[in-house]
Amino acid sequence: MGRKFLIVGGVAGGASTAARLRRLSEDDQVIMFERGPHVSFSNCCLPYHLSGTVEDSDSLVLMEPEKFLKQYRIEARVNNEVVFIDRENKEVVVRNVVTGEEYNESYDKLILSPGARPIVPPIPGIEDVNIFSIRNVVDIDKLNKFVKSIETKNVTVIGGGFIGVEAAENLKEAGYNVTLIEAMPQIMKPFDYDMVQILHKELHDHGVNLIVGDKVKAFEPNTVILESGKKVDAQAVVMAIGVVPETELAQEAGLELGETGAIKTDQNYRTNDKDIYAVGDAIEVYHALTNSMTKLPLAGPAQKQARAVADHIHGKVISNTGFIGSSVIKVFDYNGASTGLNEGLIKALNLNIKYDVVKVIPGDKVGLMPECEQVHFKLIYEVPTGRVLGAQAIGKGNVDKRVDIIATAIKFGATVEHLRDLELCYAPPFGTAKDVVNFAGYVASNLLHDAFRQVRETEVRSLLESGACIIDVREKDEYEQSHIIGAMNLPLSEIRDRLDEIPRDQPIYLHCRSGQRSYNAVLALQNLGFENVYNVSGGFLGLSFYEYFNDQTTDREMIITDYNFE
Amino acid sequence: MGRKFLIVGGVAGGASTAARLRRLSEDDQVIMFERGPHVSFSNCCLPYHLSGTVEDSDSLVLMEPEKFLKQYRIEARVNNEVVFIDRENKEVVVRNVVTGEEYNESYDKLILSPGARPIVPPIPGIEDVNIFSIRNVVDIDKLNKFVKSIETKNVTVIGGGFIGVEAAENLKEAGYNVTLIEAMPQIMKPFDYDMVQILHKELHDHGVNLIVGDKVKAFEPNTVILESGKKVDAQAVVMAIGVVPETELAQEAGLELGETGAIKTDQNYRTNDKDIYAVGDAIEVYHALTNSMTKLPLAGPAQKQARAVADHIHGKVISNTGFIGSSVIKVFDYNGASTGLNEGLIKALNLNIKYDVVKVIPGDKVGLMPECEQVHFKLIYEVPTGRVLGAQAIGKGNVDKRVDIIATAIKFGATVEHLRDLELCYAPPFGTAKDVVNFAGYVASNLLHDAFRQVRETEVRSLLESGACIIDVREKDEYEQSHIIGAMNLPLSEIRDRLDEIPRDQPIYLHCRSGQRSYNAVLALQNLGFENVYNVSGGFLGLSFYEYFNDQTTDREMIITDYNFE
Repeated sequence: MGRKFLIVGGVAGGASTAARLRRLSEDDQVIMFERGPHVSFSNCCLPYHLSGTVEDSDSLVLMEPEKFLKQYRIEARVNNEVVFIDRENKEVVVRNVVTGEEYNESYDKLILSPGARPIVPPIPGIEDVNIFSIRNVVDIDKLNKFVKSIETKNVTVIGGGFIGVEAAENLKEAGYNVTLIEAMPQIMKPFDYDMVQILHKELHDHGVNLIVGDKVKAFEPNTVILESGKKVDAQAVVMAIGVVPETELAQEAGLELGETGAIKTDQNYRTNDKDIYAVGDAIEVYHALTNSMTKLPLAGPAQKQARAVADHIHGKVISNTGFIGSSVIKVFDYNGASTGLNEGLIKALNLNIKYDVVKVIPGDKVGLMPECEQVHFKLIYEVPTGRVLGAQAIGKGNVDKRVDIIATAIKFGATVEHLRDLELCYAPPFGTAKDVVNFAGYVASNLLHDAFRQVRETEVRSLLESGACIIDVREKDEYEQSHIIGAMNLPLSEIRDRLDEIPRDQPIYLHCRSGQRSYNAVLALQNLGFENVYNVSGGFLGLSFYEYFNDQTTDREMIITDYNFE
Repeated sequence: MGRKFLIVGGVAGGASTAARLRRLSEDDQVIMFERGPHVSFSNCCLPYHLSGTVEDSDSLVLMEPEKFLKQYRIEARVNNEVVFIDRENKEVVVRNVVTGEEYNESYDKLILSPGARPIVPPIPGIEDVNIFSIRNVVDIDKLNKFVKSIETKNVTVIGGGFIGVEAAENLKEAGYNVTLIEAMPQIMKPFDYDMVQILHKELHDHGVNLIVGDKVKAFEPNTVILESGKKVDAQAVVMAIGVVPETELAQEAGLELGETGAIKTDQNYRTNDKDIYAVGDAIEVYHALTNSMTKLPLAGPAQKQARAVADHIHGKVISNTGFIGSSVIKVFDYNGASTGLNEGLIKALNLNIKYDVVKVIPGDKVGLMPECEQVHFKLIYEVPTGRVLGAQAIGKGNVDKRVDIIATAIKFGATVEHLRDLELCYAPPFGTAKDVVNFAGYVASNLLHDAFRQVRETEVRSLLESGACIIDVREKDEYEQSHIIGAMNLPLSEIRDRLDEIPRDQPIYLHCRSGQRSYNAVLALQNLGFENVYNVSGGFLGLSFYEYFNDQTTDREMIITDYNFE
């Protein structure tokens, strides 16, 4: 009577598909194979066991096979690995990894959700260090027990993606001496280089030995050797340079891979075999903003795909609107969220998109509220359409809220004008009457409509070197506390009376703390006949965050007197 | 050369208009009249002075007239009241409220932003109590100083809107004995009766003597007399039953009022005099979901209107997409946010809208995270279109995030299917892989597509009274801790083996803690041939919150054994 559905992999994608399949029918047989000892564990929570935030590693397992059976009549076979797909006979070969026994299981539909595995490259000397990676509960238990046993407490994490940064943070919180090594000039690719400096600073400020732009060359006993010649003592090494989709099973069965190397599926998440579906980290998905296929190893998309697959198997029409990639990370006291395209991605993919950027740094709540924090908010939009392409927000407060709003707006093809008009919840403990998102929409609209022009805070150093006229419109006491070396102080409150001090024969660049007062000054000067006036986007605060980490960790020339991040 | 712009009122709407007018031109003269001693104060923060959250009342004033002049060349004339508009001669008569002097000032354009004033009805004996209201810094200073001086510390707040509830909370935080009286059966109209019970409970639990559905009849010395006969000792009475737009000036000048009694404007916020604009709490606005005019005394809309007015004066095309009304409030440990339509509003306006409702109570973060809190989330959508009409969220965590997402989606005409597909930021400290909003979208889609049927938790009491079969599918230990009196316990994990215990000749109503397990049970039973199965939306948790406050404050029959809100 019923059909028989086999699922390879029992975490996010697999378990969700299984549960939805059951909800749609009581007749069908649903069997989920997991080669590890656990199904349905919270992989996103794994790093939080290292700090004890999730104290008991058993609690990381959200549901035992017994419960799957009792509550959902789903058979979850742990320690059972599907090793071969016989597409012709619609069977799989399963190996019990404990007993070594193999057996066959037939299917009507097969769903692949094998995930992705951490990359461990064959670096010379790798056998001389204690290497760990973080994929499942067994891994994190092993790592946690090992670091607890070591003497010098020196742990190195290699790779500055989500897992690497979360591991570094949680290990540091647990009291270890943590080095985080990233080969690229920055960690966390969902953020642009200018934005990520805030996270670099935060890791540095919390005592993580963050090394960027340097690659691991070799290992020696308890030591990591970098290309630069640096040596890092490491009694444990966590390898987190990235993941690669588990495609072997699919490949051997003759299922097609896509251009990214992940499993290729159609719009209904079917592989080239119409009885075999695939979901989760092992597949590539359509990116709705780059219009190309991409790997997106995130839990949210996996769950959406899982549901779609179960629905499609049951004959329902599903919608696949593509993905834009929204994510968030906590790094000590800071939160960073991101959605859609960023400048780094546009450049890396060489996308033929004309865009502009707004950066604002308002408070996330009314300034009078004790818990008010700065939000560093960056908005990317298409020119000339004003279509919103992406956003990044970093701060100590509720930055994810602002990025979720943008993620929602992007799905509807919003423009920067739409952002101005959004009606968001306001009361002093939660936000401001003109929310960060509205504010960014206003600035972007003004830029788009040519009301003013800007330079980026990232350009200030080279402007200074070329002798440009930079005017700091903050009040005198603010200037005296900390300022750009070489900037002229001409407070907004005095600027109209001191016009003769402003050169008229060259471009002038105005900045204040965050860019708001200088915007007023820029407009005033424009309206008073100055023709070549620019606002420094991100302002002194943005510049300070941008320069700080490099100033602390390299020996380049200072362009800012005593830093002040207030 | 320049034009002359006069602005009546120097708070949200007025100050924002002035600043924008200055940014658009240096030539124009901008004069802002404020009859009180302060411009640009944070009216939304006023209640927070009572608890000392905002310690210094001076800090509530965001900008002094001197700063307006220095930074923006805006003349802010405090203690100056515009008492007459001479439209023919395009002049106003201004009275200096300190000296009593009157003078004329001409205008090219006049912008009215007079706000709204607290209603103080002529209740008998009102002269026998110390009456306060909260509109400006002077008011809050006066109230704060007075309550600090009183002996019994008994303060009564009349009116359960934003200001009343915030005043009650902050006074309680400051250690006073607070009674909050609301004539209607519930406080806070942005929330439906079922949702607001959580806030009723929270006020009650924190020791506020909350009295709903009872009206003030009279005052006696230091005493409030209610219609019910109750007497409340009150050395200070804060009157916060609502506000009424300040329309006298406009009316005397022959400017039209709208159907709501507030000033009528066109789509560009012009009154019937094309040289006079009006913004803020004094005007009525177009509600984009009720398609009718409404009063919306909120700071966010006021700021948007202000900018639009300045732009329109400068010949720019503005967009007026109407308003949907988004708001949020903190009530002790709970946050409550709301946007768009709610059931109460639909009924009150007798709107011809067919709608359905989803209530879910998931965690706002991954359950393993120590700061995970329940979100009570209610979604209202149109039937049969699925168009999202509104949402309410109440919980201890970041509920405003979810409502802001809905507020954004509504602006784009989103349906419940769109909500399913939203890609929101996820990491364990911030949310869940399937966010609250996605989850509500799934449930609503399922209801819309007739995958299952539900009854509301608010119907449980009458179902019980009519002898309905209610089945609690939680596990036995949960049932034993607290349950609905008369409900049968049949855990999801056993239900398929105990089908013969379930009656087939009558409707059955399934519930669990929050509605998720019972949803699985409903589908299982449907797929097993049961035809008349309903899920109890909101579940046991929703029911508990719904019944608790009334159970504590009235003497009606209990339907729940020992309450448990975990």
